Formats: sequence, C-alpha cells, structure tokens
Amino acid sequence: MSVHGLTLGDVLGEHRRGRPLGLAVVDADVRLTYPGLDERVNRLANALAADGVAPGERVLWLGRNSFRILELLLAAARLGAICCPANRRQSAGELTFVLDDLRPAVVVFEESEAAGQARARTVAKARWVAAGEEYEAYAAAGAPSEPAVTVDPGDPVLALYTAAFDGRPAAALLSHTALIAHTMTLLHVRRMEDGFTYLNSGPLFHVGTMMFCLAAFQLGGTNVFTPAYDPEEVCRLIEAERCTHAFLFGPMIDRLVEANAGGAHDLSSLRFASHSPAWDAMITVDDSPWGASKMGGYGQTEVGGMLTFLGLAPGGRGPAGRPSPLVHVRILDPAGTEVPPGETGEICARGATIFSGYWNRPERNAAKTAGGWHHTGDLGRREPDGTITFIGPGLRMIKSANENIYPAEVERALREHEAVADAAVIGVPDPAWGQSVKAIVVLKDGASLTPEQVVAHVRSRIASYKKPRHVEFADAIPKKGHTPDYDALDAAYGGGGHPGT
Amino acid sequence: MSVHGLTLGDVLGEHRRGRPLGLAVVDADVRLTYPGLDERVNRLANALAADGVAPGERVLWLGRNSFRILELLLAAARLGAICCPANRRQSAGELTFVLDDLRPAVVVFEESEAAGQARARTVAKARWVAAGEEYEAYAAAGAPSEPAVTVDPGDPVLALYTAAFDGRPAAALLSHTALIAHTMTLLHVRRMEDGFTYLNSGPLFHVGTMMFCLAAFQLGGTNVFTPAYDPEEVCRLIEAERCTHAFLFGPMIDRLVEANAGGAHDLSSLRFASHSPAWDAMITVDDSPWGASKMGGYGQTEVGGMLTFLGLAPGGRGPAGRPSPLVHVRILDPAGTEVPPGETGEICARGATIFSGYWNRPERNAAKTAGGWHHTGDLGRREPDGTITFIGPGLRMIKSANENIYPAEVERALREHEAVADAAVIGVPDPAWGQSVKAIVVLKDGASLTPEQVVAHVRSRIASYKKPRHVEFADAIPKKGHTPDYDALDAAYGGGGHPGT
Repeated sequence: MSVHGLTLGDVLGEHRRGRPLGLAVVDADVRLTYPGLDERVNRLANALAADGVAPGERVLWLGRNSFRILELLLAAARLGAICCPANRRQSAGELTFVLDDLRPAVVVFEESEAAGQARARTVAKARWVAAGEEYEAYAAAGAPSEPAVTVDPGDPVLALYTAAFDGRPAAALLSHTALIAHTMTLLHVRRMEDGFTYLNSGPLFHVGTMMFCLAAFQLGGTNVFTPAYDPEEVCRLIEAERCTHAFLFGPMIDRLVEANAGGAHDLSSLRFASHSPAWDAMITVDDSPWGASKMGGYGQTEVGGMLTFLGLAPGGRGPAGRPSPLVHVRILDPAGTEVPPGETGEICARGATIFSGYWNRPERNAAKTAGGWHHTGDLGRREPDGTITFIGPGLRMIKSANENIYPAEVERALREHEAVADAAVIGVPDPAWGQSVKAIVVLKDGASLTPEQVVAHVRSRIASYKKPRHVEFADAIPKKGHTPDYDALDAAYGGGGHPGT
Repeated sequence: MSVHGLTLGDVLGEHRRGRPLGLAVVDADVRLTYPGLDERVNRLANALAADGVAPGERVLWLGRNSFRILELLLAAARLGAICCPANRRQSAGELTFVLDDLRPAVVVFEESEAAGQARARTVAKARWVAAGEEYEAYAAAGAPSEPAVTVDPGDPVLALYTAAFDGRPAAALLSHTALIAHTMTLLHVRRMEDGFTYLNSGPLFHVGTMMFCLAAFQLGGTNVFTPAYDPEEVCRLIEAERCTHAFLFGPMIDRLVEANAGGAHDLSSLRFASHSPAWDAMITVDDSPWGASKMGGYGQTEVGGMLTFLGLAPGGRGPAGRPSPLVHVRILDPAGTEVPPGETGEICARGATIFSGYWNRPERNAAKTAGGWHHTGDLGRREPDGTITFIGPGLRMIKSANENIYPAEVERALREHEAVADAAVIGVPDPAWGQSVKAIVVLKDGASLTPEQVVAHVRSRIASYKKPRHVEFADAIPKKGHTPDYDALDAAYGGGGHPGT
C-alpha cells in the first residue's frame, strides 16, 4: 500500500471519521450521514464480492437516478471494481449491446420491457438484482466490515458510455485518481466550499451531473437525489433541503419557473446563473467570475468532464478559456506536430484527469493515445493570447492541395452568416488538388444568397484555402444525432476521396 | 509517456503557450514572461545536462533568495533531477554534512567563509558555479531547445533539509505530483485566483515560502523575489509590483509597520490577516474564511507543506481543522492500530501530497511508512466532531521566531565540547519569539566554562539561530531511559511554551 494512494473508498473512510454527523445523501425517505453511508457501502461491497465482483469486474446500474448509484460506485471502489450507470431508456437492442460489451458480474435494474428483452438476449452471465426490496435485502446482507482489498487509485472505477463515433457507443473508463483530480479542478474553478448541497436533477449516467455529484461527495457535502426531472418535486427538494446547486439548463429552468410561478417554494438557497427576470427573483444569482454562468469551457467524458474553463481566462479571446491546472494542452496536426497559435488542429492533452481508455476497445485506445497525448477528436486552436477556442468535432477531414481542412471549422463559419439556417461541408474529388471543398447550405425562410456570396463570406472568416469551391443549396442537412451524416451527404452530393478512406 | 503525466516542466510548457505575455518572475532588474522563463530554463537544463545532471542527480543552491532557485528547480524538473535550495547561513561543518550527504553534481553558491571551508572539506565531486556573472554565463550557454528527457511525475524534484531529530538533518524529497497536488489544495483552501502576485519574503529553503512560490507558478501568477528580509525593500516591492500576497508573520510585520510608519509606500495591494491597527490601515485586511488569518492547520515539510486546514472546518473543535481533500488521516497508536476519537496518537496520513522519503535514509524511510501510512512523528487526536487537534511533536521541539529547533541537534553540538560531560536543551517562553533556547550543561570534573564560551562553541558548530540564549550549569541531567526527562527539566529550569502545549 503506497502512502500516496487516495481512492474514492479512502475519501469515504475519511468522511466517516471527519464528518460523523455530516449528511451525505438524501433520497426520498432515505437520509444517511457519512458513517451511515460508509456502513451501507461496506455491506454492499461484501455482498458484491460474494457474487464474484473482484478487482476489474463490472457492476451495471439500469435505473433512474438514486443515491444507490453513488453507493454502488463506492462499493465498487472498495473492491477495485468498476461501476457503470447506464441509460435505462435505451432500446432492447442498445441495452443488449451494452450488456454484451461490458459483461457485468451484477446488474441492478428497474423493470422495463426493454430490460427484460435485453436480459433474455444477452450472452453476459450476470446476477440480476431488481431495484427496490430485492436490492435493499441484497445490499443489507453483507458484513459491515471494510473489505480487505488493496485498491490502486490508478485503476478505473467508473464507466460511462459515450462517443458513438462509429455508430456504437463505448464505455469511457475513469480512474479514482482522474475523478479526484477532476474534482480538485472544480473545487478551484467554482470556489466550492463547505455546505455544498447538490441536487442531482440531471442523469447520473452523464458526466455533467456525475462530476458535481462526486465533487459534493469529495467536499463532504450533501447529495440530494430525485429519480427524474419533475419541476414540482425539484422545487420542493430545493426548499426542503436548502440545495445550493443543481444540474439545470435553459429549458429545465423555464419549466421550473413555470412550476413555481406562484412563488409557493422558497428557492433562495440555490445559487445559479442569471436566466430570466422571474428566475433571478426566485434564486440567488451568482454572477461571480467563478459562478455557474462562467462554467463554460471545453470538455468531454474522456477527460473526466471539463478540460478547459472560461473562468480561468477572464477577458481572454478563446471562448474555451484555459486548461485546468491539472492538465496541459497541445494543438496537433494529424502527424502529431504542434501547430502555431491561430491555426486549427486537434485538441490534445495530458494530465491527471484524462480517462484510462474505452472498455474493450484496444485499437481505438491506441489511436487515442498516439504519441503519448490524449487525442480528443475535437478541433481547436490557441489564440494569440494563449487561450483556447473549440472549433468543433474533427470526425471528418478534407485534404486539398496537401492542406488539412476540417469540415467543422468551415461549417462554423457558414453558420455565422445571418441568412444561413444550417450547413455541412464535404470533400469532393478534385483531379488537381486531391479534394476540394463543397458546401451544402440551408437558407433561412425568405433569405437568399448566391454561391459567390457564400464563398466570399467564408473567405472573410477563415483561411482562403478552406473556402468552398462548390456550393449547393438544400432544404435540410441529413443528421446522425447532432452531427451531419457525412456518408449520406457524400452519396447525395458527390463526396469522396477523403484521406484514410 | 503516459497521457496522465504532469510535471513541473509541463506546467511551464503550458504557461509558455497559454500566457505568452504573463509576467512569471520579478527579481531586481530581471523581469521574465513565461516564454522568457521557459527559454532560460531550457538553456540552463541543457547546461546542467552537459555537467552530468541526469535523472535522479542533485543540484544544490547555496545562496540568498533569487528567482534562480525557481529556475534551477524547473531546469532540474525538465531533466528528472532534484533541486535542493539549502540554508547558506549554516556553519562550515553543517554545509560539509549537506554536501557529503547529497553529493550534488552542480553547486550554485554565493561566496562565504563557511562555503569555502565546506568546499575544501567535502568528499562530494561537484561542479561549483558562483552566483552572479559566472552563473549567468553558465545558464545562458545551453541550447534553447527543451531537453528530450521523459520525466516520471512520481519522481522527486525538490529536496528540503529538515527534521534534525537524531541530531542531523535529512533531505525530504518531494515529487512533481506531490508538489502539484499540494498546490491544488492551496488553490482550493485559499481561493487563489488569477492575478496572484507573491512576494517571496521568506527563505525558499523552507517549505512555508516555497509552497506559495509554487502555487503562484502553477496558477500562472507572478513571483517577486528579494534576496533577504529588508523591511524597506519589502515595502518598495509590494508597492511597485502590486504584490497581493507575501510570506510574513508577527515580528516581520512589526518591522514592516515601523519601516512604513510615515505611509511612504502604498501597501493596499497586499491582502493579509489583521495584525495591529497600524498594519490594518496599510493593507487590505482579508478576514474571509479562506483568508490568511485562517491559514492555520497542521503541516510539515514531509507532507509538502500543510496536511490539514482550519479553513476546512469553520467552527470545528480541533484547531488543526480538517485534512486537505487529497489526503486522509488516521490517528494510530505505536502498534499501528487506530485510536478512538478523543484519544491521542500519532498523526498518520496517506495521499498525493506526501513526500517520497528522505534522501539516503533507507531505515528511517521504512519506519516513516510502516503499515502503508506516513508517520508524521507528531501527536494529535480526532475530536468528537471529526476535526483534528495537533498536540505536539512526538519528540520535543523548540519553536523560536518560526524556526524549528530540535533539542537533539543543539545537545549534540554541546556534547562535542571537550569540557562538557552532558547537556540538555529546553525552550523557555520568549515574549518576542515564542520561545528561546536554554541549555543545561554538566561539566566534566575539574573543567570550567563560562556561559559565553558555551554559546560561542555552539555558534561555531550550527546555525546562529539555534544557539542557546540562556545557559545554566548543573550536576546532572534528569533522564527517562537514555533521553533527557524534558518534563522534569521544564519544571526545574523554567521551560514552557512548546508548540502544541
């Protein structure tokens, strides 16, 4: 056992001693102090160990939000195992894929048609435990002593499915060290302090909520859980538990304001960004440089959450701000060479918060860590003042006259035109230059533009060699999720000759 | 190269890119941006490498405060080597001990009689470089490219001599990871932010100043250096550089207030704890829960600086507060078993900020890490509310003018006098300095010495601040086993005011 080690289980052990009366979790009628949570976690860990959950084994949660996700994660932490909270609203086929991919030793699930079908179809041999009474009995049956397992804090403990770049998601593995390091960056950037009470109002299978849940835990604060986003219930919980923070964004806030229109609930404990006059009147607006409104930056599940923060570069030119103090960033070209400030390349990084690779994806992991740098797959640049701009995902590249052109960058420039509703960019074969750039543009209702105007606009924004040589107008851009479906675009508009294809 | 690595050299590399105009250091007529510091560090590193400074080799600084200590540390960091800034005010014998113990490859030194004698006596084969023109030419001669050395962030990079428990100091080794982790705890606890400008007004061979120097560096802030504590010059620097923080305590502040009695200097940029009405009127008093006044807690060089912080347990019962978020603490009995809350035991800890052992002390290191816990050698307890109380050193220590003085070290010097049969040293309360040193001396039969001769003898052997201010002669030293019975000595000779009592 190294004197330098700190695992999530160790954090819980410290809180049991250091915060004997501290309220760790609130969930419906469950209220647990840190000693109470520690005892439940030990019992659950010993029950899991009896079901074969050894170091490196996986446990899967298929259910709505619950403090039991944190409990399961901490029990896995005590065993050197990996906890995966997955999205239960996936189809039976998607759930089967997750089960076959992850091969969990134990699955805790809420009944659903899809879960039942996936259970019948999967080749994974898991012990299935139904959330509710069965789980409670299961979790209470283990011995209360701490499992005698030596856990390496560099080993993964959390798996989150993400990044369906090739049409199938993969589970990003995050180690104890990465999660604790990421928490330290949040504590620093957001000036988190004693009394932090977090309402887990977003899904815990997403890093956006999970990272704050873990920060509240590491701080010795309180995590409040609600099974799903119900604006009435969220108002009630904020008032009852004096929640100081919550996972909320635009449309969620609008529904909250509507639900509390009569002012029935006192939401003044909540410190959040300004949104609308009605919202601002209900809560405590935090417009400090480290407040919620300045949370912006650049991140992804694979870096534990956030890699850069706007709040670390007040007044800087790049909207992504500066890297957190525990990482460093390089903007690299496809050959792995650093590009100069002002030029676009792939955002690459190194540091304590970076993930440990995807579960069961050795080839992709090798590509993600080429040259000893984590390759985010996203495009960005260093501004002359040293701050970072996130350009967009770097899925597809165009090679014209030996220059690398990233569709996301050209698309961003196109969308900045007031007459453009949407746009996508592909490479078309070019006998002279290998490829040339073709833009497919959707105009706003009633707007009109000539191809020449489109080209002139792009040329005014980015380097000339990136401007489209061909422009076609269309009614819509085919999409895969939120990103253009480039295969469909290539087929419809004559694309081809992409490097690497 | 792991994607998780972050060394001090990496931090500098990020700042070179991220803060192209950021002022890194100010020292007399030297003003360096981060790119400027990065270039100097690379040149110095390449020069050191040519002198055999390979991974694990040591470089020693024997001089007053200077930005060149940070530069030397960062150059060592780029090479995987270890930098030791040592106290140049030590005697020739003490300096010889350090040289023989550390065996540095390169020594940068300011001329002094003691340094000259130590250089003549030591068996260490080092390249000696005189601070000043010789050093400047030496540091400028290397190539400006970054050395191609892969550095493990878990390897030591800083060595600080401390802990003369057995009569001889030892060099505590701190890794990149430990120093960066400790900085993260400071950023969190002290809410450090952009614009942090630190005046290095304390000695950089002491962790108390070094930890803030490193925090300012990690933040991308500015470090201002002054060769020694001159109140007039400190006032001038605070005003000229708009320093926001500085290393200061009671008697230093009194001298500053005296020097600025006429209000000649505007010290309002300095944010510091309240001290006296005159002081409070000169500076910006920071009485926030994370302000300088709440810096208290418990620490030692071996944990990178601070292990626990009062500011993390506002209103808590234990004056040492709570552990930093990157460590966990156990109070253990001599058998390594945890003692219950309220009972005294040894403060033991695990976590990222813990040191890598003492240089060249394998037996002591084994004892320090028994059972996988770092043994601080200090006594403490958990209060019922979970907070920590520091009781005192497991071995007796004297604290005078913020310096740790170990009786064993002074006693060893006393016993080396041919007329001394036995001796013991206690601390007596001192209104100005907390404590001062009192020696109780047993002379050999027929020998005679004056108190002045005793003091002069000690002063010839060890640093002046450790010499006795009071000497009493006695017939015998009361003992507990082989060691002096300090409680009996305190009672008989007016001892008291020991830290923790």
